Amino acid sequence: MGSVAMDSDYGVPRELSALQKARALYRPDLPPCLQGTTVKVEYGDAAIAADVAGAHVISHAFPHTYGQPLAHFLRKTAAVPDATVITEHPVVRVGVVFSGRQSPGGHNVIWGLHDAIKAHNANSKLIGFLGGYDLLGRTRDQIRTTEQVNAAMTACQALKLDALVIIGGVTSNTDAAQLAETFAESKCSTKVVGVPVTLNGDLKNQFVETTVGFDTICKVNSQLISNVCTDALSAEKYYYFVRLMGRKASHVALECALQSHPNMVILGEEVAASKLTIFDITKQICDAVQARAEKDKNHGVVLIPEGLVESIPELYALLQEIHGLHDKGVSVENISSHLSPWASALFEFLPPFIRKQIETEKLLAQLVEAEMNKRLKEGTYKGKKFNAICHFFGYQARGALPSKFDCDYAYVLGHVCYHILAAGLNGYMATVTNLRSPVNKWKCVHDDRKAMVTRTSCQSNWEACCSHGELLRQNSSSFLMEDIYRNPGPLQFEGPGGETKPISLCVEDRDYMGRIKQLQEYLEKVKSIVKPGCSQDVLKAALSAMASVTEMLTIMSSPSFSGQATI
Amino acid sequence: MGSVAMDSDYGVPRELSALQKARALYRPDLPPCLQGTTVKVEYGDAAIAADVAGAHVISHAFPHTYGQPLAHFLRKTAAVPDATVITEHPVVRVGVVFSGRQSPGGHNVIWGLHDAIKAHNANSKLIGFLGGYDLLGRTRDQIRTTEQVNAAMTACQALKLDALVIIGGVTSNTDAAQLAETFAESKCSTKVVGVPVTLNGDLKNQFVETTVGFDTICKVNSQLISNVCTDALSAEKYYYFVRLMGRKASHVALECALQSHPNMVILGEEVAASKLTIFDITKQICDAVQARAEKDKNHGVVLIPEGLVESIPELYALLQEIHGLHDKGVSVENISSHLSPWASALFEFLPPFIRKQIETEKLLAQLVEAEMNKRLKEGTYKGKKFNAICHFFGYQARGALPSKFDCDYAYVLGHVCYHILAAGLNGYMATVTNLRSPVNKWKCVHDDRKAMVTRTSCQSNWEACCSHGELLRQNSSSFLMEDIYRNPGPLQFEGPGGETKPISLCVEDRDYMGRIKQLQEYLEKVKSIVKPGCSQDVLKAALSAMASVTEMLTIMSSPSFSGQATI
Repeated sequence: MGSVAMDSDYGVPRELSALQKARALYRPDLPPCLQGTTVKVEYGDAAIAADVAGAHVISHAFPHTYGQPLAHFLRKTAAVPDATVITEHPVVRVGVVFSGRQSPGGHNVIWGLHDAIKAHNANSKLIGFLGGYDLLGRTRDQIRTTEQVNAAMTACQALKLDALVIIGGVTSNTDAAQLAETFAESKCSTKVVGVPVTLNGDLKNQFVETTVGFDTICKVNSQLISNVCTDALSAEKYYYFVRLMGRKASHVALECALQSHPNMVILGEEVAASKLTIFDITKQICDAVQARAEKDKNHGVVLIPEGLVESIPELYALLQEIHGLHDKGVSVENISSHLSPWASALFEFLPPFIRKQIETEKLLAQLVEAEMNKRLKEGTYKGKKFNAICHFFGYQARGALPSKFDCDYAYVLGHVCYHILAAGLNGYMATVTNLRSPVNKWKCVHDDRKAMVTRTSCQSNWEACCSHGELLRQNSSSFLMEDIYRNPGPLQFEGPGGETKPISLCVEDRDYMGRIKQLQEYLEKVKSIVKPGCSQDVLKAALSAMASVTEMLTIMSSPSFSGQATI
Repeated sequence: MGSVAMDSDYGVPRELSALQKARALYRPDLPPCLQGTTVKVEYGDAAIAADVAGAHVISHAFPHTYGQPLAHFLRKTAAVPDATVITEHPVVRVGVVFSGRQSPGGHNVIWGLHDAIKAHNANSKLIGFLGGYDLLGRTRDQIRTTEQVNAAMTACQALKLDALVIIGGVTSNTDAAQLAETFAESKCSTKVVGVPVTLNGDLKNQFVETTVGFDTICKVNSQLISNVCTDALSAEKYYYFVRLMGRKASHVALECALQSHPNMVILGEEVAASKLTIFDITKQICDAVQARAEKDKNHGVVLIPEGLVESIPELYALLQEIHGLHDKGVSVENISSHLSPWASALFEFLPPFIRKQIETEKLLAQLVEAEMNKRLKEGTYKGKKFNAICHFFGYQARGALPSKFDCDYAYVLGHVCYHILAAGLNGYMATVTNLRSPVNKWKCVHDDRKAMVTRTSCQSNWEACCSHGELLRQNSSSFLMEDIYRNPGPLQFEGPGGETKPISLCVEDRDYMGRIKQLQEYLEKVKSIVKPGCSQDVLKAALSAMASVTEMLTIMSSPSFSGQATI
C-alpha cells in the first residue's frame, strides 16, 4: 500500500521544479546545544502526554522495513561528514512512523533523526513503518484493541527496536504515551518517543511552543485569505465565509486572523465560553453586515474554524445523533423521524442541502442570507442583497512545501529524538523551546514529570487561544469596519518574509522553562541577601513579603481557584 | 463608491507585512527599446481587436478624477529622476480605467504609464476613473446603450482627455475597439488604448503572447493543485476535482497542468472539438478511476476549466434555458416544467443540489460517483468506494500579490501605452513580445493593420491551447497512472523560482514578428543571390522552388483550407 505512494518518488523519474530542487538542497542549522560530538541537552526533554483514560494506541499493526526507498531518500540527505562519526556510541535500531493528518515538515523529523543517529554510530539503523504522508503513506487505521497493541509490540520486538518514534498530533502522542506504558508494563525494551507534528497547532503547552506544520499551514492559508480580502475590496459585492481546517481548537483561524486582518473571526473557544447558539452567531454576523452596509460597504471576509461546530452544543449534539443514525444505516430522507424531538426541530430548520453534510461556513452563510433578506423586507436593512461565497481551506494547504521555520524545527526535533532514545527514556516527547528566537538560541528542555497530560494541555490551549484572542479584540472594531486587510503574501524561502514565524508564537513569551530558571535565580538572590548577618529590617521585610507571596501562590494553586491564570 | 475601497489604503493606517513593504519598493526594469529619452519603438504597437458585431463598449458612465488617492499612490512610485524630464514633449491628459475581473499586476500598468508620462513632461496629467480593482474599484456595469457611450464621450471631452487607457480582458478590449471607432466617427479627439490584463489568458494571439495576471494566477493555483496532489498521495483515499477560474478558454487549466502534473485535465477546447457529451466525459474519468484502482491507486487529481460547461453543447443549452427562466422569475422548483422537452430530461437527470447552481466539478464528481457505485455493484469495478472532494480555485488567487514577471510586464506595458498615445494612435493595444527572454530582450512591436479581430484571436487561442495540449498528451498516460506530480511551490519573489514564467509561454516560440522579420531576411537573401549575372541553373532552381512555395502558401491561405496551421 505505502509502496504505491513511493513509486512516484522512487520508481518513475519525476520532474522537479527549480524550487523543489533548491529546497531539497536546503540544510537546516542546529542550535549550539545540539552541535558537536558532546551534545549538551540542557534539561533533557518533556514527558509525553499520558492521559490513559480514552487514550488510543499507535496505528498500523503490520510494519514493513523501509529498505530501499528510505535508503534512497537518505542518500540525498545524509551529508554528515565521516569525521564526525563516533563509533564509541552504541549501535541503535530505531523505528519511525507517521500518524494522523498530513502536516508539512514532518519528513524533516526523519532526516534530523537519521543524521543524528548516523553521526553517533554509522552502524545504527533507522527503519520506517509504512503508513504516514506521501513518504511513508499516512496511517489510515488506529490500533484500539489489545490484539493490535500486541501486534505492534511483537513487531518492535521482532525488529529488535531500541526505540519507536511516533510523529503526529494530540491523538498520536496520547497513543504514544499509552503505548509506552504498555511496553514498559510488558517489559518490552522498545522505548517510545513522540514528536509534535500537526497542522492544527493544538498540542501547545508549557513545553510545546508550537507544532511542526502549523507555521506553513497558517502561511498558505493567510495568503489565500489575504487574496480573498483583496478580492472582496475589489469586487465590493461578496461576503466570503472561509472555514479553516484545524480540528477542535481555533489556533489556525486565530493565527490567520492575526496575519491577514479579515473583518471577523469566530473563535470556537469564545463561542463555547459565552455559550453562544448558532442563532446568536448568525445575529452577530448579520448586525455586522448591517453596520457595514450603513457605511456603504457590501463586502467582507469572515473566518470560521473547523471546530466551531463542536463548540456549539446543540449543533454538536445534533451532529452526533445524525452520525449515530447514519452508522445504523438510516437514509438522509428518514433521519428526521429518528431524531430526538429537539434535534428534529433543529434539523427541520436547517436548509435541505445542509442536512446531507453540515459544512459550517455554508450553514452560517445560508442563515445570514435568510436573516438579511428578512431585514431587507422589513426595511431594517437597507444595503445591497447579501451575497456569500464559501470556502474551505485545508486540503490545499496541508500538502505544501514546508516553510523554513518548519524545516528547521522538524530537523532539530529529529535530533532531539535521538538524544531521548539514546538516553534510554521511555514515553517522552521531543521538544525545543525559545523558538521565537533565532535557531542559535533555541533550547532543548527537559522535565522529568510525566504529569503533562492531555487535559492540562487542552486547558493551556484554551488559555493560549483566549490570550491571543485578546490581541484580536483590541483591534476587532477597526478590523470589522475599516478593511485594514494585511497581506503576508505567498510563503517565501528567501528574501523578505523568508524568516517570519507565527505571530501567535512571537507575541507571547512562551519560554516557560527559561522563566522557571529566572524565578529560581530570584529565590537564590533573596537567599544570598537574607542570611545571618543581614539587618533586622531586611529580614522583617523579606519575611513579610515572602509570607504574602506564599499565601497568594497557595491560594492560586488550590483546585478550587477559578481564576484564569495565564502561563 | 470606489472611494470606500480606498479608505483602507489611504484613510486608516494599515499594517503592511514585511513582504508587502519589500514589494512596494520593487522597481521593474525597462527593456532597452524603452530606455532613455529617445525611445525607439521598433515596430510600434498592434491594433486593438475591432470585432464590431456584438461588441460592448467600456464601462462606467460617470468618471471621477482620481485626485488625492492617485497622487498618494504615485508618490511612493514616482522615482523618475528630474533629469530625465524632457519638457519639449507636449503636455498630455490621460484617463485610465480598469474593466472586468480583478487580475494581479494591473496596478503596475498605471505605475508604468505614470512614470512614462511624467518622464516626458512633468506637467502631463494621469486621471483615474473609479471602478476597477481595489485601487480604483472594479467596474460593475458595462455601457451598452448609445446613451452610455455618449456619456463616456462627454466625460472624456469635458476632462479634455488626449487619451483613455482601458485595462482589461477580451471583452474590455473589444469594448475599447468599439469605443475607439465611435470616438473617431464622432470626431472626439480622445484616443483609446487597450492593455491586455486578464487572469484568463484568453487574449493570446500573434501579438499578445500572454496577458498580465495569467502568470500569477497560474502560480498560485499550481501551488494549491500541487499541495492537493501531495495530499492525495498521502491520504490515498480521495479524488480531488478542481475547477479553475478562467472563463471560456482552458489556458489556466492547461498551464496549471503543465506546472503540477495532475492525473487528468479536461480541456474545453478538446471536448468541443471531439463533441463529447457530459456522459462521455464521465465515462472517461470512470475508466481512469477503474484503471488506477487496478494498480491499487484509489486517489487522484482531476482539473476542470471553468469554461468546460460552455464546451458541452447540451449542458450549455440547458444552462441558457435555466438562466432565461430565472431572469423571468421562474423559481427553481418550477423550472423543470418550463424547459424544452430534451432540456427537461437532462435537468431531471441532474442531482437535486446541482439544479440550483451548476458547479461543473460537483456535477462531474457526482456523476462519476454514481457510475463507480454502479460498477462496484456489478462487479466490474473492484476498488475502494469512490470518494471525491471538490474545489473551485479562483477567488483565492485573483487578489494575489503579482509575480515578478507580471510586475515587469505590466510596468513595461504602461510605458508602451504612453508611446502609443503620444504618437496619436487610436484603437491600439499595448503589446510587448519576446517575453520568454529576459526583460532586456523584450520587443515592442507594431502592426498597422486593424484586422486582428476577436474572431482571429479566438482561433489562435484554440490553436495555442491545442498545440500546448500536445505537450500534455505526450505525457498523459504517465500523468494518469504514475502520479509523477510536480510541485512549483509557492510563488517566490527572490531566489530559486523567482524568475520563472508560464511554461506555455516558454515552450513555444511565440516571437511572431521576429519570425516575420526572419522570413523577410530570407527573401532579401534570395533576391541578392538571384540577380542579373547569376547562372541559368541558379535562376531555374530559384524559379522552380519559389513557384511551388507560392502555390503551397496560396492554397494554405485560401478560406476553404481546413488544415490546422500552427502559428
